[in-house]
Amino acid sequence: MEEHLHTPVKPFLISQGCTLSELVQRMGGTSFQARNLARGVEIWAEMLKGEVTIFFGLAGAMVPAGMRHVMVYLIQNRLIDCLVSTGANLYHDLHESLGRFHWQGHPCADDRELAGSRIYRIYDVLTSEEEFDRTEEFVTHFSSALEQDRAYTTREYFFLLGKELLNQGREEGILAAAAKANLPVYCPAPGDSVFGTALAAMRVKGEKQLLFDVIKDVIEMVQIASSASSTGVVFIGGGTPKNFIQQTELCGYIFGKELKGHEYAIQITTDSPQWGGLSGCTFDEARSWRKITPNATTVTINSDATIAFPIMVSALSEMSAEGIKNRKKPAFLLGRELTIL
Amino acid sequence: MEEHLHTPVKPFLISQGCTLSELVQRMGGTSFQARNLARGVEIWAEMLKGEVTIFFGLAGAMVPAGMRHVMVYLIQNRLIDCLVSTGANLYHDLHESLGRFHWQGHPCADDRELAGSRIYRIYDVLTSEEEFDRTEEFVTHFSSALEQDRAYTTREYFFLLGKELLNQGREEGILAAAAKANLPVYCPAPGDSVFGTALAAMRVKGEKQLLFDVIKDVIEMVQIASSASSTGVVFIGGGTPKNFIQQTELCGYIFGKELKGHEYAIQITTDSPQWGGLSGCTFDEARSWRKITPNATTVTINSDATIAFPIMVSALSEMSAEGIKNRKKPAFLLGRELTIL
Amino acid sequence: MEEHLHTPVKPFLISQGCTLSELVQRMGGTSFQARNLARGVEIWAEMLKGEVTIFFGLAGAMVPAGMRHVMVYLIQNRLIDCLVSTGANLYHDLHESLGRFHWQGHPCADDRELAGSRIYRIYDVLTSEEEFDRTEEFVTHFSSALEQDRAYTTREYFFLLGKELLNQGREEGILAAAAKANLPVYCPAPGDSVFGTALAAMRVKGEKQLLFDVIKDVIEMVQIASSASSTGVVFIGGGTPKNFIQQTELCGYIFGKELKGHEYAIQITTDSPQWGGLSGCTFDEARSWRKITPNATTVTINSDATIAFPIMVSALSEMSAEGIKNRKKPAFLLGRELTIL
Amino acid sequence: MEEHLHTPVKPFLISQGCTLSELVQRMGGTSFQARNLARGVEIWAEMLKGEVTIFFGLAGAMVPAGMRHVMVYLIQNRLIDCLVSTGANLYHDLHESLGRFHWQGHPCADDRELAGSRIYRIYDVLTSEEEFDRTEEFVTHFSSALEQDRAYTTREYFFLLGKELLNQGREEGILAAAAKANLPVYCPAPGDSVFGTALAAMRVKGEKQLLFDVIKDVIEMVQIASSASSTGVVFIGGGTPKNFIQQTELCGYIFGKELKGHEYAIQITTDSPQWGGLSGCTFDEARSWRKITPNATTVTINSDATIAFPIMVSALSEMSAEGIKNRKKPAFLLGRELTIL
Repeated sequence: MEEHLHTPVKPFLISQGCTLSELVQRMGGTSFQARNLARGVEIWAEMLKGEVTIFFGLAGAMVPAGMRHVMVYLIQNRLIDCLVSTGANLYHDLHESLGRFHWQGHPCADDRELAGSRIYRIYDVLTSEEEFDRTEEFVTHFSSALEQDRAYTTREYFFLLGKELLNQGREEGILAAAAKANLPVYCPAPGDSVFGTALAAMRVKGEKQLLFDVIKDVIEMVQIASSASSTGVVFIGGGTPKNFIQQTELCGYIFGKELKGHEYAIQITTDSPQWGGLSGCTFDEARSWRKITPNATTVTINSDATIAFPIMVSALSEMSAEGIKNRKKPAFLLGRELTIL
Repeated sequence: MEEHLHTPVKPFLISQGCTLSELVQRMGGTSFQARNLARGVEIWAEMLKGEVTIFFGLAGAMVPAGMRHVMVYLIQNRLIDCLVSTGANLYHDLHESLGRFHWQGHPCADDRELAGSRIYRIYDVLTSEEEFDRTEEFVTHFSSALEQDRAYTTREYFFLLGKELLNQGREEGILAAAAKANLPVYCPAPGDSVFGTALAAMRVKGEKQLLFDVIKDVIEMVQIASSASSTGVVFIGGGTPKNFIQQTELCGYIFGKELKGHEYAIQITTDSPQWGGLSGCTFDEARSWRKITPNATTVTINSDATIAFPIMVSALSEMSAEGIKNRKKPAFLLGRELTIL
Repeated sequence: MEEHLHTPVKPFLISQGCTLSELVQRMGGTSFQARNLARGVEIWAEMLKGEVTIFFGLAGAMVPAGMRHVMVYLIQNRLIDCLVSTGANLYHDLHESLGRFHWQGHPCADDRELAGSRIYRIYDVLTSEEEFDRTEEFVTHFSSALEQDRAYTTREYFFLLGKELLNQGREEGILAAAAKANLPVYCPAPGDSVFGTALAAMRVKGEKQLLFDVIKDVIEMVQIASSASSTGVVFIGGGTPKNFIQQTELCGYIFGKELKGHEYAIQITTDSPQWGGLSGCTFDEARSWRKITPNATTVTINSDATIAFPIMVSALSEMSAEGIKNRKKPAFLLGRELTIL
Repeated sequence: MEEHLHTPVKPFLISQGCTLSELVQRMGGTSFQARNLARGVEIWAEMLKGEVTIFFGLAGAMVPAGMRHVMVYLIQNRLIDCLVSTGANLYHDLHESLGRFHWQGHPCADDRELAGSRIYRIYDVLTSEEEFDRTEEFVTHFSSALEQDRAYTTREYFFLLGKELLNQGREEGILAAAAKANLPVYCPAPGDSVFGTALAAMRVKGEKQLLFDVIKDVIEMVQIASSASSTGVVFIGGGTPKNFIQQTELCGYIFGKELKGHEYAIQITTDSPQWGGLSGCTFDEARSWRKITPNATTVTINSDATIAFPIMVSALSEMSAEGIKNRKKPAFLLGRELTIL
């Protein structure tokens, strides 16, 4: 029995002035998802201490939800090494980089009325259609300066876009921070976003013929994973970012290698395994595929990311401030080309 | 358009040393459930400022999850005025008051093996069957000192149990703190817990014939609500506590009054409205019944309570330290009898 | 590998005239929750073949949702042996037995307007407050004929209520069918329903002093379980019915026995285990408590019960029509008293 | 009050030999998600009667779950006009078309052991890694016959793959049926699947340089929508297919048009709106964007698709057998090129 009953649950104590690292420490003494949240911070801190290349998957409307600067913090302080995102989050990031806003609204709004007022709703967030269109114009203008009839990896495209924002002296968001840090950003479904529709419009108008080379994206991801001594993942939500990062471990054979699977894995999700989908699946399931190495250190945090994610990153900022500074960064990027091959 | 786009989403900023009241303030600038969490703190603080009698509904295995002292804090500092709980949480509270523990375990344990080792599992929490039995013996011993053939309200029963724990100098948990503070505790389904099964065993063995007067519980709840100038509710989960507190507002007629519905309402839940059940239903639905007054101030926080609840109470402890101290407490209880009639 | 890969997933084939037993058979060849649904029918059918006493837990607003006659079918055809229900479902059953209706509405109704029109909403169902009040009058009238100062088990109370409905020649609903079949109905939280509030009002008005003996309910449940050679459970939702039925297996000691745990277990739920609550917990967790016997045959069907439940019962009606007819019924009830002791 | 209380909930009646169209009809008389399911069938039938181009979004592991032939039925009987899918479902379809199987397994398998046995798990479905690799070889072989240095739309790629399967006389699955019917199939994230990784491997080995033109996919989607007098959508799950289909309505401007938004919308989902993501969002939210026209006829069915989807399609097969036969099909495809411009 003692083998099982070794660590008592420590009731959470309320005290004034509690900081977020203390919060997380206390959560670690409790149970259910609070304990998982604390475990997530612990695993992430462990990754930062070792030579681990950290992939980050970003799904869900996290930028409209106010998570943009949490992402920027991760990039600037190199708590992650490679970002895979939905197109929408990158577009919303651009939108805010250009000085525009997302606005607080209500989930029970009158959507017919909003449609009439040309306001888009994302749950309890609102945006102006007109302003959205102007951000699209920026995409069109930026893209028209790219080379004709050339296929760009999404990494290259978003790197150049980030550089452009830096050049224009825009407020440093996800894309700009990533460009500055040479941190690669991939987008597995670029056609499924305003970037895609803007490029579609340009092509129809005969302005410019541009292609995304999503196959080269795959190759680069495998290169990054192959060059790492160890890899870990952090997922906000599921979608294409989660699978795109996980499948990489099955593709070492492209370079004649067998990859061993990610060795650390954290996911913050509101989905559940019982529906059978990839977004909600457990890391145990991923072990059977060896996307995650059989003995990987993993945790799933069932929580809205808007709550769990900023707490975790704040706690990390306190706990590993020293560790982060001295972290050995995987230096696989220089300028526009991956230099690891 | 300006009528809609007035308050920008403020991206959450990471900084070191952030306290929980600062956390909640920042969450208020974001979206989705983080914003709802902040709104919950705001509404609760508003209740504490006014003359509002606050009912608290407690469901889910919150004591095993480490939430016992958060509850104690609420009672000792009078952030709530009346507690309605599942029997299990009160039993788990007694268990810890007697110096026993809940233990950290794993949700994927081998339950057949645990059964063989006489260990009970509650998701990722473990308890010793033998120790549980000893807590039941305490219940039996305590109950055997009660009056024969008498019907006790659950409030009276748990008040006397709390007093007993105080007399024995036990560590102050939920029941003891409530007894000390004369804060009423109700349990709508006392038979659905070890309290009920212990009393059942006593009766079969011919030791003592005890009854719970669950109808008088209903009457007292209506008295408490009727005597308040205004009422509010906070629910952790749903179940009988949620409905029991809500139905009270429909029963003013018992005393020839029409109650106006609770004026403030906060719920932390992991359930959803689309399944049609009471546990997951919205406060809007409750408005149609006038359990909640049509113009009530309400918020639903979709989150595991182990994460949201301690944060909210910690933030309240900082924000309203002064306000709480001077709070006018509804003085409807003295000793064993409700004195408000 | 063959040990794992023995049964191919059989794609569901669309054909016209497919009956519900064929539907379930086809679901059994697929995966995810459809396969679980089919497994649920299989387990239920297995219970009906053996000498298994079947406890049924009913939570969620199943009668307003149109599930009343499915319940009646279960009782009339003895597919279950003992019903544990929330008070609300029994009240809604009475409401319809008296010739009143629940009405189809919309989940996004204007609840303030409904409150003004004295219409109650339950997700997408509406009821008339005035008609609800008249059903409460029936409860009051019925209860006023009961014996003064007497404690009734909930089983006895609902049996008498069912008999009254039969005597009045009302349409046979849950309560009437159960009374006719001598099938016991328990309600662990009678105070948490209009039955409780009606009795509270009667007492305050000095009309009649009635008690519910919820402890004797516990004793009877243990008697029923103890007298069975084998037991099984079917849960719609969680709440008090689920725990009340499960805890029974821990209470054999009341009669000096050790019960072995339920041997068959089916639950249809929309809750999930990760929140730690009893409503969403797995049957594996219940094994550690021996509420469910370690080698029990179990399945969890994650689905809205309004979809899964009628399909399952319809399929059972076809598959086991013969078996049901000859089923050996546990004859533990005669008239108002349990006769098994 | 009569304006609200016009249609009583009709309790579901159990009867033997009930067919799936009768099931759905009865569900329509009930509430909660069963009523929504019935409403979904009604809306789909309405679309089939009119001149509506129906887009279908397929996410989640639906082919491993046994839904392949339901999809084939939809295509062969032209209950849909355009399919947008995750890459995984198309790969799993190919896998079965080549005579291989998915296998029934258990969600609580020992995944480390499965990894050792080279078996992949998808919730309660298993596949052989070796057989998966052989399906990838088929993809490689097929792709090596495509033109060098050419960018293929995903529609073209999957059309050619379907044709190849037809030529080889393979069992008619999703891809083959779609190719035969000239029904376009799009995949917004082709790199996020074995199709992408196979092409990546080919390129690294210097075998063939192939590109996916995901921008032309966007253009074609807008062409299809622009050429329709009216459009509707059916979504299984969310992910890229849902957004990709919805964004199309915002892009009429590419061809100098304003599209009016989809006029019919059905989604079967296990996600919820409160997390703010696109996968779980309501069609009301989509109205604010005018992805869905303000007065669109919509329904959300909260259910595992393995349960709801085959029932809906079976019911449609009975209800509209005649209607379907005479359905006016949008003839926007001939051979490899879209012919509608």
